[in-house]
Amino acid sequence: MQQLSEAEISAIKDESARAYELDRAHVFHSWSAQELIDPMTVSRAQGSTIVDGQGQSFLDFSSQLVNTNIGHQHPKVVQAIKDQADLLCTISPAHVNAARSEAARLITERTPAGLDHVFFTNGGADANEHAIRMARLHTGKHKILSRYRSYHGGTETAVNVTGDPRRWSNDRGDSGVVHFFGPFLYRSEFSATTEAEETERTLRHLERTIELEGPSTIAAIILESIPGTAGIMLPGSEYMQGVRALCDKHDIIYIADEVMAGFGRAGKWFAFEHFDVVPDIITFAKGVNSGYVPLGGVIMDEEIYGSFAQKAYPGGLTYSGHPLACAAAVATLKAMDEEGMIEHAERIGEEIIGPRLRQIAENSKHVGEVRGVGAFWAIELVWDKESREPLAPYGGGSPEVASVVAALKEHGVVPFNNYHRLHVVPPINISEEDLETGLGVFEKVLTDLDFSR
Amino acid sequence: MQQLSEAEISAIKDESARAYELDRAHVFHSWSAQELIDPMTVSRAQGSTIVDGQGQSFLDFSSQLVNTNIGHQHPKVVQAIKDQADLLCTISPAHVNAARSEAARLITERTPAGLDHVFFTNGGADANEHAIRMARLHTGKHKILSRYRSYHGGTETAVNVTGDPRRWSNDRGDSGVVHFFGPFLYRSEFSATTEAEETERTLRHLERTIELEGPSTIAAIILESIPGTAGIMLPGSEYMQGVRALCDKHDIIYIADEVMAGFGRAGKWFAFEHFDVVPDIITFAKGVNSGYVPLGGVIMDEEIYGSFAQKAYPGGLTYSGHPLACAAAVATLKAMDEEGMIEHAERIGEEIIGPRLRQIAENSKHVGEVRGVGAFWAIELVWDKESREPLAPYGGGSPEVASVVAALKEHGVVPFNNYHRLHVVPPINISEEDLETGLGVFEKVLTDLDFSR
Repeated sequence: MQQLSEAEISAIKDESARAYELDRAHVFHSWSAQELIDPMTVSRAQGSTIVDGQGQSFLDFSSQLVNTNIGHQHPKVVQAIKDQADLLCTISPAHVNAARSEAARLITERTPAGLDHVFFTNGGADANEHAIRMARLHTGKHKILSRYRSYHGGTETAVNVTGDPRRWSNDRGDSGVVHFFGPFLYRSEFSATTEAEETERTLRHLERTIELEGPSTIAAIILESIPGTAGIMLPGSEYMQGVRALCDKHDIIYIADEVMAGFGRAGKWFAFEHFDVVPDIITFAKGVNSGYVPLGGVIMDEEIYGSFAQKAYPGGLTYSGHPLACAAAVATLKAMDEEGMIEHAERIGEEIIGPRLRQIAENSKHVGEVRGVGAFWAIELVWDKESREPLAPYGGGSPEVASVVAALKEHGVVPFNNYHRLHVVPPINISEEDLETGLGVFEKVLTDLDFSR
Repeated sequence: MQQLSEAEISAIKDESARAYELDRAHVFHSWSAQELIDPMTVSRAQGSTIVDGQGQSFLDFSSQLVNTNIGHQHPKVVQAIKDQADLLCTISPAHVNAARSEAARLITERTPAGLDHVFFTNGGADANEHAIRMARLHTGKHKILSRYRSYHGGTETAVNVTGDPRRWSNDRGDSGVVHFFGPFLYRSEFSATTEAEETERTLRHLERTIELEGPSTIAAIILESIPGTAGIMLPGSEYMQGVRALCDKHDIIYIADEVMAGFGRAGKWFAFEHFDVVPDIITFAKGVNSGYVPLGGVIMDEEIYGSFAQKAYPGGLTYSGHPLACAAAVATLKAMDEEGMIEHAERIGEEIIGPRLRQIAENSKHVGEVRGVGAFWAIELVWDKESREPLAPYGGGSPEVASVVAALKEHGVVPFNNYHRLHVVPPINISEEDLETGLGVFEKVLTDLDFSR
């Protein structure tokens, strides 16, 4: 980010003061108690940097809800949006449009063979709603299995398959939703002490769940390839291959939710590539165009597609395949290729973020575990390493975690925080310099921590 | 639209041939049997005109699913999108952002007093999902009443409150959804022969429904202020005021779905203004920025807001209050004011569309009724005026209606078609010249019709 001049900072302050006042009067914020928040103003952004309402710069280690994978204001994507705006902003979903076609081509070029059809939505939640509908109509079965500690979106069906406290207030006992426990060695439900034990026991648990719920009642298993907000718990390949095998055995559709983990975040185009599995349906959003224009979608294989080839699919939306959003996706995918972003994300995960976070964990009393891949890492803050008790309760916050977040911000880094966890999720194309600076702040803040009760 | 040169047409043909091929290989279309459609390519558009893959121009009397209220490529909105793209494309919903704040201000400036808070969504479906959630949590009650012959969106809860055949394949007996019959004099369920009778009988029917379902179980009534795709059946003011009174009497939230009817379509900022009622919650999308960038939202009054002031609202989305979408809304609302579009829509409805369609109805054997307001009109195609039997069955098509649509297109007009109905829904700022041309085509095609069985 270029240095802002005094005049620019003064303009930002004026604009932001008014924006803040209007926000508090008229803008209702997601997942919030409206009068208990004091939201940060963001007036400008560039690459891995965001600028607040005082003109102060911060390193964005949150990527805005793990969304802006290519960072802020990537010039190629901005230009593509402007060009498409000049050409044609929108057209109905019934029509053919060049930007829509090209986005679908580039997306399916990156999927495993056979996953060749894209239904575009506005975001991740409706992508999951439609994926679930497709699975139900395709199989003629109703139940959806998903794991605890997961997030699949904010609309009614999406939030009900979610395994996260955000479901609770919306949970009216939605028919056909069943949750199971997935692999999470650090907090194993099955008293596993090794990865192999955790894989074996969680797979057995899933198999039992399927058998006891009844395979003939289960339409789909939906799984974030790597659970995101819920904690970035990487499953083992054997687990994921086991899930695939159970789905094959019981005619269950395997839906891979790649909304957060996909499009480079995990150092691959799709996170499931880490596990050598191929899903029947992929859902995506966020990274596909870094959210520069709202876009999500469902990618399906030939079999699912076949169910709606001669019979209408009963779903749709006005903005499906929005040209402006698709043009942004085309530019994003090309830029990722041209600039080697996927490889960069993989490499910085292996060579920089991983080693550095593990070192921090060793030296900090309150870091229980770090885990991740690519530009997708979680830090478990705990009271002590023996009890592993989270530094904030499940579904809540604590003064201790709040103080850590505040300290990181004070040193110029905005982290992603969920309950007791911090996630290190900067843009996947972050420069090594910015990355080292940000990780230095994490090191400084976390190493010094010493809470006691 | 400027005349296209030979070179431009040649480029359009090449681009469109490839777009079509890729579309058929990779793009999954809304509400369609994928292999039974032959979608029209749209390569360019300007004002009320769209250009197909052969470079041929058509008058867009559909506004792309009643979406582009200000027509295609309005220069002020295109410029605003480009400017915002240069400044800041996206930011997380947690932050304050100037474009978001200004859009919320301009929207709430246009609502009745007290409806001052906007929760931004991606479109109309998720707006209705969240409105329903807010009503349920605010009242602690569960049931949602909505009318048959309505459309509220494609996600699971939205499509289940919908009263349209598109619900059927998705209907798993969703808990808490109750449908009733609204006013529709032309096809009265209650044997009414006058507007007054229809109002009285439909209100009594709604009151009975509420009493027998149990007022203590009903969270909200959701109503399109003027049902859109379902047929543009204008309710009487007394009906709508009666609904408001029933909601007040029984502590039921009144949600006005203004996704299609709002933002000028009906010749008012909000269609409910025709009926002198004030809802508790308004949902919107489409016209707010003519869909140039996906945007929807929920506007709520102080009471609903109060329920989430000290307690978190359990809902949200990554793209809520998207800066690019909000900047487009700001420019759209300003352009509507500056160019007097709302008044224009009201006037062309009264002075041009209404009189002309009524004349067509008189002279056509197969036009049973025309009805509407502003730039929002429906034409009932029937076998004969006595039986009023629809020219295509409910939920389906017919060769007869298909031939009418084809004839309109042949003469250069793309209509909106739903089952046996044609809707005349051009951009609200359509020039009188374009309007006369298009209506001339409707007149020519409809007057000559002579189907027999």
